[in-house]
Amino acid sequence: MYDNSENLSKKAGQVKLAARELAKAETSRKNQALLAIAEEIDRNRDAIKTENSKDVAAGKEKGLSGAIIDRLTLNDKRIQGLIEVLNDVVNLKDPVGEIFNMNTLPNGLKVGQIRVPIGVIGIIFESRPNVCIEVAALTIKSGNGVILRGGSDAIHSNLLLTSLIGKGLVRAGLPEDCVGIVKDTKRESVLELVKLKDFIDVIIPRGGLELIRFVEENSVIPVIRHDMGICHTYVDEFANLEMASKICYNAKVQRPGVCNAMETLLIHSRVAGQFLPLMKEIYDKAGVILRGCEKTRKILPGIEIASEIDWRTEYLDLILSVKVVENVDEAIDHINNFSSHHSDAIVTDSYTQGMRFIQEVDSAACFINASTRFSDGNEFGLGAEMGISNQKLHVRGPMGLKDLMAPKYIIFGNGQVRT
Amino acid sequence: MYDNSENLSKKAGQVKLAARELAKAETSRKNQALLAIAEEIDRNRDAIKTENSKDVAAGKEKGLSGAIIDRLTLNDKRIQGLIEVLNDVVNLKDPVGEIFNMNTLPNGLKVGQIRVPIGVIGIIFESRPNVCIEVAALTIKSGNGVILRGGSDAIHSNLLLTSLIGKGLVRAGLPEDCVGIVKDTKRESVLELVKLKDFIDVIIPRGGLELIRFVEENSVIPVIRHDMGICHTYVDEFANLEMASKICYNAKVQRPGVCNAMETLLIHSRVAGQFLPLMKEIYDKAGVILRGCEKTRKILPGIEIASEIDWRTEYLDLILSVKVVENVDEAIDHINNFSSHHSDAIVTDSYTQGMRFIQEVDSAACFINASTRFSDGNEFGLGAEMGISNQKLHVRGPMGLKDLMAPKYIIFGNGQVRT
Repeated sequence: MYDNSENLSKKAGQVKLAARELAKAETSRKNQALLAIAEEIDRNRDAIKTENSKDVAAGKEKGLSGAIIDRLTLNDKRIQGLIEVLNDVVNLKDPVGEIFNMNTLPNGLKVGQIRVPIGVIGIIFESRPNVCIEVAALTIKSGNGVILRGGSDAIHSNLLLTSLIGKGLVRAGLPEDCVGIVKDTKRESVLELVKLKDFIDVIIPRGGLELIRFVEENSVIPVIRHDMGICHTYVDEFANLEMASKICYNAKVQRPGVCNAMETLLIHSRVAGQFLPLMKEIYDKAGVILRGCEKTRKILPGIEIASEIDWRTEYLDLILSVKVVENVDEAIDHINNFSSHHSDAIVTDSYTQGMRFIQEVDSAACFINASTRFSDGNEFGLGAEMGISNQKLHVRGPMGLKDLMAPKYIIFGNGQVRT
Repeated sequence: MYDNSENLSKKAGQVKLAARELAKAETSRKNQALLAIAEEIDRNRDAIKTENSKDVAAGKEKGLSGAIIDRLTLNDKRIQGLIEVLNDVVNLKDPVGEIFNMNTLPNGLKVGQIRVPIGVIGIIFESRPNVCIEVAALTIKSGNGVILRGGSDAIHSNLLLTSLIGKGLVRAGLPEDCVGIVKDTKRESVLELVKLKDFIDVIIPRGGLELIRFVEENSVIPVIRHDMGICHTYVDEFANLEMASKICYNAKVQRPGVCNAMETLLIHSRVAGQFLPLMKEIYDKAGVILRGCEKTRKILPGIEIASEIDWRTEYLDLILSVKVVENVDEAIDHINNFSSHHSDAIVTDSYTQGMRFIQEVDSAACFINASTRFSDGNEFGLGAEMGISNQKLHVRGPMGLKDLMAPKYIIFGNGQVRT
């Protein structure tokens, strides 16, 4: 779908104006909008499924994979999930206006920081239409405007959901333009979006490496990357191997198609001979295909060899690369070289190795003795999330309500001048 | 000066390796390095002045302005200032490893955040050689590597100072490469630097609009802008005019060449007739040239007219633009349209107007009843600063030690898996 008449910079300007209104809105009014959107969704279940079925049909015709079709599909359970997300965000504390770090200086100035909305968020995402609602819920609650740029696969669903969001906003007396959508799903509209620095304060690309690279190379607006998860679990020589086996099974098998699933298993050479055959049996039953380094293949003859490409691959599938390492240093080095700085875990009973791991591994979330699958805003107690940032500035890991704020300094004086 | 043999990506790689060592260094060792650098500076005062005099002579020959020559010059007092900065940073609390927001979840997972260094900072700055020491002090203390890319005007001073930093690091047993310097001062080296995303985690451009724009348009690395200060003071109808006059005098006159000086005075129409003639007299004595809107010129006939260009200009000089506004809304709108989002002040005794101003003005620092000249890391109690960020992500306003950290999530489990 290509909307030739779309004037993106005009649209972004409208969102910016609406965002200024929203930034001043009271919590109760914002919550009223979220509840009205939930009501619109509830009332329009059939229409949502109808529009969604157009996307699903087009996707099947295009030959999209089963996994992508699955992510695209909005069934009754998922529509209910959207309503629940909105209710959850109603219950989150409004971050706007929170004052912190307040200090009185020797000259009597009172200096602190106040949380205010960032302004306008531009988010570029791929197949899941749920993102419209999750993102709008968070941006409305945090007083930010947002411009949604979804992929072509979900365009019918996205357009309907955004119109329902607009209706809910208007019913609560807020401007419809608080949430805008880009109708043009060609790559050119991304290029245009990332140049609108007079209107948009941050660009969040959620998706594959190609999209992220395109945005990073072209954006003149600050970017918060939400890209892939090449997650590791390192089973140390001092691991409780029974615990390790449960964690490694869960991290790989429980939901392999998501970014916090494990892609590489690192195993200490002293326990590899005992642990790997055990895991092979368990993984075989779950249909997990193993690819190993030379040392792994000495223990598990017959499995495929893992090349450097494997260490850099997010399989999102029942495939696992395995590497035997000599010590925690080699594990940390491997992770820092090959991980996508998302989520990595150590299983160990050594206090020293565990503490070294979480301090030295350069990833957004570092786990001791738990599955990387917990790397998620909801699991971490943040409520809903915009996505998971794997860059270092502003926010690392799950991006929640507070991360949609841009605290500024406020200074209360009584006539102070500088000498 | 052009160093053809310089391999920037190799150099950045060396800094990245050194930064990994530094990230693990104990506080005492980092402080030892800072003290050793202070000692090297103290021992080499004459050499510093000799190298600096080459820069100053070249600058005079090039016809640089007196203000720039002044910023370039390292005299005894300023060299002493460098030593003091190093000592000040020794006394700041080491931010590395601080754990915060620790919570225990219902499933027993303990989730929190730990401050770790960002990694490698690339900083691009213009004439002041002091920046080398101030920045190195902060990056060393915070466990970050840094690549300095100063301007050609200060290249002799910068090279010597960086070699002294290297000596201090080595004396403390830390890698010399923790602080690297780009010798090539041509624009091409900036272009090369902002592409090295495998080695550099953040680019900080400190300087004029042209440099900032060049970096924003070309960088594939996240950028923290430190650009200009178009600061406003709004004198409200409910202001104590005596206090307002002291604040407006201080904000404009005390040090006009810096980014937190006032460039535009906004005055409420009800008090303009009383306040402006009074200020004109005071400003005249200080040699301040006024440029006003039409309403201002009715009160102060004979002053030049201010055009839209004036509202957008950082004079850094004894020039002030003046605009009469009808209410706080007009003042806030003007500031949000024309300010550089740096520091803006209101003078008022109205609680409502004051609170609206600090909430609605979209700037890094919003003052009530004080001079914008206080917008500074030292004044705010942060200790030394990397500069003043006027962008919204990661850090707004003075950038101190804590802002050189990239907190990551740490999760302590005892075998938890996700169901």
